[in-house]
Amino acid sequence: MQKEFLEVKKLYRNSEEFIGKTVHVAGWMRTSRISKKFGFIELNDGSFFKNIQVVLDEEKLDNFKELSKLPISSSLLIEGELVKVDNPKNPIEIQATKIEIEGVSDSSYPLQKKRHTLEYLRTIAHLRPRSNTFSAVFRVRSVVAYAIHKFFQERNFVYAHTPLITGSDAEGAGEMFRITTLDMKNPPLTEDGKIDYSQDFFGKETNLTVSGQLNGEIMALAFRNIYTFGPTFRAENSYTARHASEFWMVEPEIVFADLEDNMDLAEDMIKYIITYVLENCPEEMEFFNKFMDKGLLERLDKLVNSEFVRITYTKAVELLQESGHKFDYPVEWGCDLQTEHERYITEQIYKAPVFVTDYPKDIKAFYMRMNDDGKTVRAMDLLVPGVGEIIGGSQREERYDVLMSKIKEMGLKEEDYWWYLELRKFGTATHSGFGLGFERIIMYLTGVSNIRDVIPFPRTPKNADF
Amino acid sequence: MQKEFLEVKKLYRNSEEFIGKTVHVAGWMRTSRISKKFGFIELNDGSFFKNIQVVLDEEKLDNFKELSKLPISSSLLIEGELVKVDNPKNPIEIQATKIEIEGVSDSSYPLQKKRHTLEYLRTIAHLRPRSNTFSAVFRVRSVVAYAIHKFFQERNFVYAHTPLITGSDAEGAGEMFRITTLDMKNPPLTEDGKIDYSQDFFGKETNLTVSGQLNGEIMALAFRNIYTFGPTFRAENSYTARHASEFWMVEPEIVFADLEDNMDLAEDMIKYIITYVLENCPEEMEFFNKFMDKGLLERLDKLVNSEFVRITYTKAVELLQESGHKFDYPVEWGCDLQTEHERYITEQIYKAPVFVTDYPKDIKAFYMRMNDDGKTVRAMDLLVPGVGEIIGGSQREERYDVLMSKIKEMGLKEEDYWWYLELRKFGTATHSGFGLGFERIIMYLTGVSNIRDVIPFPRTPKNADF
Repeated sequence: MQKEFLEVKKLYRNSEEFIGKTVHVAGWMRTSRISKKFGFIELNDGSFFKNIQVVLDEEKLDNFKELSKLPISSSLLIEGELVKVDNPKNPIEIQATKIEIEGVSDSSYPLQKKRHTLEYLRTIAHLRPRSNTFSAVFRVRSVVAYAIHKFFQERNFVYAHTPLITGSDAEGAGEMFRITTLDMKNPPLTEDGKIDYSQDFFGKETNLTVSGQLNGEIMALAFRNIYTFGPTFRAENSYTARHASEFWMVEPEIVFADLEDNMDLAEDMIKYIITYVLENCPEEMEFFNKFMDKGLLERLDKLVNSEFVRITYTKAVELLQESGHKFDYPVEWGCDLQTEHERYITEQIYKAPVFVTDYPKDIKAFYMRMNDDGKTVRAMDLLVPGVGEIIGGSQREERYDVLMSKIKEMGLKEEDYWWYLELRKFGTATHSGFGLGFERIIMYLTGVSNIRDVIPFPRTPKNADF
Repeated sequence: MQKEFLEVKKLYRNSEEFIGKTVHVAGWMRTSRISKKFGFIELNDGSFFKNIQVVLDEEKLDNFKELSKLPISSSLLIEGELVKVDNPKNPIEIQATKIEIEGVSDSSYPLQKKRHTLEYLRTIAHLRPRSNTFSAVFRVRSVVAYAIHKFFQERNFVYAHTPLITGSDAEGAGEMFRITTLDMKNPPLTEDGKIDYSQDFFGKETNLTVSGQLNGEIMALAFRNIYTFGPTFRAENSYTARHASEFWMVEPEIVFADLEDNMDLAEDMIKYIITYVLENCPEEMEFFNKFMDKGLLERLDKLVNSEFVRITYTKAVELLQESGHKFDYPVEWGCDLQTEHERYITEQIYKAPVFVTDYPKDIKAFYMRMNDDGKTVRAMDLLVPGVGEIIGGSQREERYDVLMSKIKEMGLKEEDYWWYLELRKFGTATHSGFGLGFERIIMYLTGVSNIRDVIPFPRTPKNADF
């Protein structure tokens, strides 16, 4: 039956083809205004952000009376003529000749026309994708995900599926969730009274991954250029608007490539994504610009046409100190940059996206390449106006000896990294990579300020509903 | 630096553009044959399945001696002239004018030229992507993943990210992994001595998902057509060649669509994927056809050009009974079809892919649409030669009352399904969907017979290495 029903998106995009013809559409009644003999239904079929207006004429429809009493969100199968009307915003409508009721909605449907808070809408995550805001957000999310795949695949990158269940806390990037099938009440114990994970499902302690990077490096050192794109987890009790316990990450890794290549790739990717979503979701982006963030389209347009600034951490610290601005956290060389610092650099000093590179080694991960100064590593963060950090990456330490001494210096266990070290033993090569928090870019692109509103079914502390 | 180094894939695909010119490539030495004054290196740069031959001439290279002693898998930066040679299999080679050694490999490199068993290669998962077999498998895996996204996005499906951490065992599709941050040794207990999950991270018992379908239905009933594509988990102690604890699934869900639409979609998708991979990975597919499964290309070609058969379960049982074939498990109406039955139907009876529909309700899930006969449900399985079942799906029960009584009949808890039921209350609609085990299709396309060899870092009972 589906082929029979044209997508509303097609009616809008190729309206010339259908005007004057009989068309069939199927969708949900978003609103209706029906008088005794005449009426209008705003129908949304899910294929498109915009509704199509359906005109009801009592003389043409047997069930006109029934339709006039129908609760909103009822689903309808509609036959009618597509006609052109003199309305620049909605230049087409359907004059119905037959309307079949597919599913009558209950009048208690909670998404009535009045405005709801985003907080309330989170409690009806099974219905909120039917609202304008979430219809736009989740479609943009889908289109951006595809843009990311398209960007990398067109450049011959291999999409690498790195594991979510991990037996090592190798990156130490954050708190982890334990995975187990042991009886929680009577877990097996070893002789010295510890939990005996050798009897657990995987024969050892396992957790949910915090990053696919180390596995990604394996794949890159075979395929030259790879990317991961999948779920990642953090068991941190942070109730902020920017943190979720389950989120998606994109992690490209490139070989025979240094930090400059890494920044080029990040800049190209961001510009590609923005351009793609502007081209493919014009209605949704218009909506966000109007209702979420008035400067959005201008900001994105500017970003696509700007060259990203590249400065060192040392330079950034100097600039912040010279600025005379009073920060909550004073800046000095060696400290990690706070969001207020990052935003000041990108919003006040440069008014453009800024790569900050070569951070002090003590505030960065063990795998980042040591610079000749012995004090800094080849790290990079990309800061963008309105958000702050959106990408973090580095050139990786490719020298076996340097990596080994770093592992020891940081008190990590050599045996946990045996295969990671072997990558440096069997044909090591200069390589680099970065991580993009997928939700961060969606928030940036939509103007939505809470991460709970860009994930269909968010997981946060004390919340795993739906 | 990366832009300097042309991809070997480009040299092969656009060789006319580069012949007679100086090119730079970077890659790993797969093999070498070097005599006193002259030599050959087979270089693989990861961008392409095939190696490029590099010709070494002592008179042109200062470090010829050093190069002649280099262990395989060393990484090299090469400058030289691309020349045409009279060899249909490898029509181009590089006559090196300069070779820089990027990373010397250790001579203990385990992937020496001799053949290794797949079992052994699993123990060096950090190096096996550099072998011909795994280079081909994981590239095909990447290209198929992209083909799936492309197929659905071109048809205006929304890519829906359903959660991996779930608070409900709603589908009951299999054993689950528990996720917890509780102290395993001293978990908090409730007054009646049970584990007090209200003190766990999410405030309740949580597990890793076995299917995104129920959440997918939420999204479909807002967007008409959606698909999920992500990791899925089964905590089952099965040590078979076809089961992994972590694997990827594709689950489209379509609205205003019945089981016929569902089968059309599945058939179109399978044909699209195969056509795409044949076009985009000809070298890899040639390799599989030669070394993994001699009839592979012929079988795939036949499948793309065949019309898939559609029969009911009742008919399938009749055919199996009439066949006179002696099965390990005798067939009678009401039993679940075993792999031997499935393969007999698709390989012996029809010699083509077969959809089997309308299974007995007692062997299928609660959400499948009840037929008017009261005995069967609108389920479908797609069986393909060489594998058996590759897709399972159904039309979903869209009638509130029927679904409710089914939930009660099967002893499920109504409150666990409150939102799933509400989808039938607020504008329900005919809808359908299916699940494709991503690894199954990769195995089918490559001829690889063990699921551990189509996942870069497989998770199976007692194994979460790498």
